[in-house]
Amino acid sequence: MNIPLKRYSHVPVHEQICQYFIDRISSNMLKEGEQLPSVRQLAKELGVALVTVQKAYQLLQQKGYVESFQGKGIFVKQRTAIAHPPLDTKWQMLVHDYVPRAQSLAISQPLRNIRYNLATACLHGELFHMDWIRETTVHVIQQQPQLLSQYSSANGDMEFRKAVSQYIRTMSVPPEHILATSGAQQGIELVAKTFVGPNDVVLMEAPTYPGSIDVFKARGAQIIPIPVEQDGIDIKTLLRVCDQYRPTLLYTNPTFQNPTGTTLSMKKRKQLVDIAESYHFLILEDDPWSELYFDAPPPPPIKSFDKSGHVIYLKGFSKFLSPACRMGALIAEGRLLEKLIAAKSISDLGSPLLPQKIIAALLQSIQFEPSLQRLRHQLKQRAKQCHDLLHKQLPTLTFRQAAGGSTLWLTLPRQVDTTLLLEQAHLHQLSFLPGNACFPTHVPTEHIRISFAGVPLDELPNAIEQLCRALHTFQIENTIEQFPSF
Amino acid sequence: MNIPLKRYSHVPVHEQICQYFIDRISSNMLKEGEQLPSVRQLAKELGVALVTVQKAYQLLQQKGYVESFQGKGIFVKQRTAIAHPPLDTKWQMLVHDYVPRAQSLAISQPLRNIRYNLATACLHGELFHMDWIRETTVHVIQQQPQLLSQYSSANGDMEFRKAVSQYIRTMSVPPEHILATSGAQQGIELVAKTFVGPNDVVLMEAPTYPGSIDVFKARGAQIIPIPVEQDGIDIKTLLRVCDQYRPTLLYTNPTFQNPTGTTLSMKKRKQLVDIAESYHFLILEDDPWSELYFDAPPPPPIKSFDKSGHVIYLKGFSKFLSPACRMGALIAEGRLLEKLIAAKSISDLGSPLLPQKIIAALLQSIQFEPSLQRLRHQLKQRAKQCHDLLHKQLPTLTFRQAAGGSTLWLTLPRQVDTTLLLEQAHLHQLSFLPGNACFPTHVPTEHIRISFAGVPLDELPNAIEQLCRALHTFQIENTIEQFPSF
Repeated sequence: MNIPLKRYSHVPVHEQICQYFIDRISSNMLKEGEQLPSVRQLAKELGVALVTVQKAYQLLQQKGYVESFQGKGIFVKQRTAIAHPPLDTKWQMLVHDYVPRAQSLAISQPLRNIRYNLATACLHGELFHMDWIRETTVHVIQQQPQLLSQYSSANGDMEFRKAVSQYIRTMSVPPEHILATSGAQQGIELVAKTFVGPNDVVLMEAPTYPGSIDVFKARGAQIIPIPVEQDGIDIKTLLRVCDQYRPTLLYTNPTFQNPTGTTLSMKKRKQLVDIAESYHFLILEDDPWSELYFDAPPPPPIKSFDKSGHVIYLKGFSKFLSPACRMGALIAEGRLLEKLIAAKSISDLGSPLLPQKIIAALLQSIQFEPSLQRLRHQLKQRAKQCHDLLHKQLPTLTFRQAAGGSTLWLTLPRQVDTTLLLEQAHLHQLSFLPGNACFPTHVPTEHIRISFAGVPLDELPNAIEQLCRALHTFQIENTIEQFPSF
Repeated sequence: MNIPLKRYSHVPVHEQICQYFIDRISSNMLKEGEQLPSVRQLAKELGVALVTVQKAYQLLQQKGYVESFQGKGIFVKQRTAIAHPPLDTKWQMLVHDYVPRAQSLAISQPLRNIRYNLATACLHGELFHMDWIRETTVHVIQQQPQLLSQYSSANGDMEFRKAVSQYIRTMSVPPEHILATSGAQQGIELVAKTFVGPNDVVLMEAPTYPGSIDVFKARGAQIIPIPVEQDGIDIKTLLRVCDQYRPTLLYTNPTFQNPTGTTLSMKKRKQLVDIAESYHFLILEDDPWSELYFDAPPPPPIKSFDKSGHVIYLKGFSKFLSPACRMGALIAEGRLLEKLIAAKSISDLGSPLLPQKIIAALLQSIQFEPSLQRLRHQLKQRAKQCHDLLHKQLPTLTFRQAAGGSTLWLTLPRQVDTTLLLEQAHLHQLSFLPGNACFPTHVPTEHIRISFAGVPLDELPNAIEQLCRALHTFQIENTIEQFPSF
């Protein structure tokens, strides 16, 4: 009897044996009145203890599938006597698991009773220039009557790629080096599954964007965290790590970094390219924020210093054009790009055409630049308001003023476990991102990420006030000293 | 000196060593005038032959990076003397490769000088009810002014999932069991990467849909092909294989199967579920065609007989609604579904919202059913025309008449290598899918798949005539006997 037992499963062996017989009986492969092997015989065949088989048979009997006749043995019960087996998905526990439960899933779950969502890095709908986006979309659909009946090629629509090429013209990237992706997240995953395998070393900023941690963990990579300084990733530590390990890839978010908001200096951008060339690793540069600066534009992308194809660049269009289109663009060259296009083709045969055409039209629109300037201005006003409110209510709390993007990274006293603080915040109808979500090791930290772009503007003051109240209550309840004074 | 050599690379070891020094010199980590290790010393350190290091140093010297001084050693040349290194992507050959070049990529490449595309399984634009689709889309965008600024949740928009639940109401699937995917292809990949790992056994129909072969091959699975009979997969072989291997998953396309057009009988559908339960494997039921029947509706999906959650069901909406939206829906339960949602979240954080809203509106539209009936009628007319033309011009060629879907599977004499025949067809401005693309082993076969839905209706007669001419020429040039007479 060939019962596929999984010794290291969550499901006890006797339950696995029981389930095996239930399946066989339910599907009539073991027929009514048929005798089951003796306890002794089955235990021997399977190499398990007698008591294990006994327990399995007892369970089967309890569930009404078999009956025991003293001195004769165990037999399959009459069909009519078996209740219709309920939907039993316990066998699913036996299925191999190659994907961990997405961290981001837990974070993105709808929160009940949350009025002030400071957790999201997404922009609130009122920040988008909706009339323009909607009218452009309708125009695209009406101007190209056959559009909705067409497929995109695996690497993306040529008009989309030309529009992206033109948009990032300072980098001089031809459309042929551009791959359309369904958001930047898909770009990260395509790179990971193409170039990163189990035990490969991946270097990540600590803290970093939580969604990227999931991707590399799901690939079974060994993640080495590199600290982030005021001017971006710590180069000294990076070099030491490179000498010790043989990294395959460095994932970085160099401009208004998610979550710390720091921007990698020009000097360090050039250094990173040199280091990647020397140690033969890839840099994956994720750049969702660089156009959303408040005053001075940030330095050019790392990719623009790359002469040898060591940098793969990702640009997402959800943050400043249309989240509902979920488009991104990946830039790479040569064999790297060929492999990524193959991976994209296997993944979904290519992104949907309609969102590509919409993003292309928006990027080429004469209203694009004014719309972007308006968005920058709005975000800057929100950042300033958030900063002033925090400064007023928590004068001793120091944090870095945002120069772009949509989030602030707050550092609380060391004793604060921000996961516990989040529970307090929920009582104040408030959510934020606890800092541990941004570290690959998921240890408790004293940091939190709050967004100044995710709630309606008129609710921002209340949201910040609720945050301060939650902190205050938490401080009193946990008698934490050195807390920012109120 | 820590040079990461790859012994089994396409790039010879001496070139790898040379490239290592070029990178170090270019990035100034080896400075002008600095001495390289001696040939003997480096060979010993790296465990390679003396001659390998000699060759590496010669190459470096030829490229102008170093100079040799008799009796002193090898030194980095003065900076000014080094020409700016050209874009050299040879190092990319060293990057680990976890993804094979997508088979589907080769197939989907634009074919020059192809006038009659009989290779695609996609429907020609004229088959879609474009006015209705376009107007519905514009309506969706104008009725929901904030739509384009919103994200979908990872498992999909609730309105989309409700519309799908209602559409497949005979299966009684609640919206909670539905996961929105970017086309059925993404569904296949999500299942593969969640439940199939290296060396896991995957059972596939032979022949089958080529895009699915790529997915499971990319996972490193062991693919066991099961023949397809007139009424679907061969159950006897399946049972024998199940006894011999421990399959993880069976991928099947039970209705108007791509490429053979066969439909799994009701009896076999029930058997498949029983077998999956008994042997504890998953069935992945890919169902893009079932609504596109010509006369009688096909039997209900395998999933509708599944009481224990062993079947994962996939429905794509590109074939009869809108390819430019590339939406699909996956149906599963319990832990399987949870894991698949996690995998989807890691892959792209969720499909774009706009296409989901469009498909939901189309499915709920009062014009949906008439539009589908019109499409069925058109496809039936095309199938009949194609059949009559082939029958008239190649009376001895026997093939199965299509009862639904968009393709015909033609079987030629055994001597015909259809990959070679395709070259002949290209001379006739024609393309088709050679049968070998549909087998996991990719051996030459005598089958070809042609589509009667991919060219404009008025070009279908010419396309079939060109196909017959290509066959005729090929027969004469290769002196093949037993060829269908003309």
